[in-house]
Amino acid sequence: MVAPLRPDPRKAVRDMAPYSPPSSGRAGKLRLDFNENTVGCSPRVIEFLRSRICEQQLSIYPEYTSVKPALAAFFKVSSDELLLTNGTDEAIQVLVNTYIDDRDEVFILRPSYAMYRFYAEVAGAKIEEIPYRPHTLAFPLEELLEAITPQTRAVLISNPNNPTGTAIDIAGVKRILDRAPQAAVLIDEAYYEFCGITALPLIREYPNLFVSRTFSKVYGMAAMRMGCLFSQSANVEYLHKCQSPYSVNMLAALAAEAAIQDTEYVSNYVNEALAARELLREGLAKLGIDQASSSANFILGYFGDRAIEVRDALRDQAILVRDRSYEIPGGVRITAGTREQARRVLEELEKIW
Amino acid sequence: MVAPLRPDPRKAVRDMAPYSPPSSGRAGKLRLDFNENTVGCSPRVIEFLRSRICEQQLSIYPEYTSVKPALAAFFKVSSDELLLTNGTDEAIQVLVNTYIDDRDEVFILRPSYAMYRFYAEVAGAKIEEIPYRPHTLAFPLEELLEAITPQTRAVLISNPNNPTGTAIDIAGVKRILDRAPQAAVLIDEAYYEFCGITALPLIREYPNLFVSRTFSKVYGMAAMRMGCLFSQSANVEYLHKCQSPYSVNMLAALAAEAAIQDTEYVSNYVNEALAARELLREGLAKLGIDQASSSANFILGYFGDRAIEVRDALRDQAILVRDRSYEIPGGVRITAGTREQARRVLEELEKIW
Repeated sequence: MVAPLRPDPRKAVRDMAPYSPPSSGRAGKLRLDFNENTVGCSPRVIEFLRSRICEQQLSIYPEYTSVKPALAAFFKVSSDELLLTNGTDEAIQVLVNTYIDDRDEVFILRPSYAMYRFYAEVAGAKIEEIPYRPHTLAFPLEELLEAITPQTRAVLISNPNNPTGTAIDIAGVKRILDRAPQAAVLIDEAYYEFCGITALPLIREYPNLFVSRTFSKVYGMAAMRMGCLFSQSANVEYLHKCQSPYSVNMLAALAAEAAIQDTEYVSNYVNEALAARELLREGLAKLGIDQASSSANFILGYFGDRAIEVRDALRDQAILVRDRSYEIPGGVRITAGTREQARRVLEELEKIW
Repeated sequence: MVAPLRPDPRKAVRDMAPYSPPSSGRAGKLRLDFNENTVGCSPRVIEFLRSRICEQQLSIYPEYTSVKPALAAFFKVSSDELLLTNGTDEAIQVLVNTYIDDRDEVFILRPSYAMYRFYAEVAGAKIEEIPYRPHTLAFPLEELLEAITPQTRAVLISNPNNPTGTAIDIAGVKRILDRAPQAAVLIDEAYYEFCGITALPLIREYPNLFVSRTFSKVYGMAAMRMGCLFSQSANVEYLHKCQSPYSVNMLAALAAEAAIQDTEYVSNYVNEALAARELLREGLAKLGIDQASSSANFILGYFGDRAIEVRDALRDQAILVRDRSYEIPGGVRITAGTREQARRVLEELEKIW
């Protein structure tokens, strides 16, 4: 008997490494491993969802007619400059599918959010990686500007960057936009609220700029999958052509509409997370643990050859942090949630270190 | 001043027609235009969601560790033969991204669900369309078998088909699978529950078979975006490599887990919809309106050159049906919901016709 035929996946897919972030067993633990809001979303979101969920409502395909203008007004753009997406992941995917053909040149930075490489690989792109500067993990602006060519089709940047926490300023973003006018330049601002630097107003000026935001981090809605992608309306029209008309679930859209009405909740959480980050910074420094300078709700600390050991020891105490030593020597990423949570993790670290 | 540069989208994207199904103003109307469950999802889904939604729960990235084995058991497959997807749309997208390279040959039927062509176009595929047989809209099995070549990389079929309502039997499905052992053959069973024909058990036998199911139709959860894609585990491993690890929102996953526990609700709704379909069939026949033979929860009727006029006249009475005359001469698609709803639409049709 001959072995049965099996359809061969594309070469690009065969060559990809599987991406499997930890995705179970996190409930009940102190979750400082995914840079989520560690307290939860605004209670107003819950109230709103509870009041709107009903049998009839769930049976209808999503309609974004109410949420879209509401979000556009909140972000100070017009509705046709905004694409709702199924989390930031879909924003990256739609952008790549719109602009990247097989073997097109795409720039990403290393280390950065894994999904830039992921979707660029799925598209069969020629991926060029620019490393963040050693140890400081500062944004390698000159190196990137020098490497960009007239053939560059996309530049995918997270600002502030994950997992480094480091940021690039707006002057730097403008230099990239000026250097690559023919490329789609994505500035993924998943952690914007913690640093206050945004390229969003620049979309009017730069037809090659794309900015993404998410409701998965400060808004505490990671379970819902809700993101936004902004660009000039002529670009958004093309992005729309590459997106399923119903990819954002309706409860996520409703939740976002409720979430943006509770700006106080968000700014309170930002203040708390920044205070927690300062506690973490001081506490780690006191233990002699060096860190990258963070503009986000997490800190990348250098734990030398004890990175995995520390991660595991904390897990034994029901505290989850993220080992990144496979891409940053000695690197462990710790989410800044509340000051109380920061004290808790520092207390355990003191025992371990 | 020179016009600013704007990044050019891919040629495949420029060439695509935008897909814009009606997506607003449906609330408050009798919605017989999208083949949804016209009554709503099971009340148990609502109860379950209301009890599970809380601030903390929404802030965590989705974990499918509980829902996946539950769904696998329900569908009588193992967990590694199942991929959760953000509606059937993502199932099609992931399959296409896994197997279809630029210029690869993909077979679809015409008319069928628009997203097969959509994602194949995004992938830059060479799309071959086989028309359903004229008027009867019977599945063109011999024509498809004859057209498939050793270069065919995918065959995307909806069974029963939307918008024709017609189905292919399992013997026919097997002939396609045998004819195209090197291709990924998708049988999209979005309307399975209304006809009872399924290729799902064949995945054990055929390594080239992919079956999709959805919670958007009979389960009444279209707002939530929840689908499943089944195949042999070696294929599912490749599919996983092309999918974001969090593309299904957690509330949809929870809702699905609750929905499959209320099988009585689903079978009651199927019985009601089939009774409504029979009323529609008789009622339309009485008015002299010819129809394709339907195996799903809708009927495709032939309204000649009055198709759009009829659609508009019904809309004036707050009844939504779907004009398909742009692809099937005179075709209007009417969802079968409850018998009461069928009587309502027939009553209005009698006045118009």
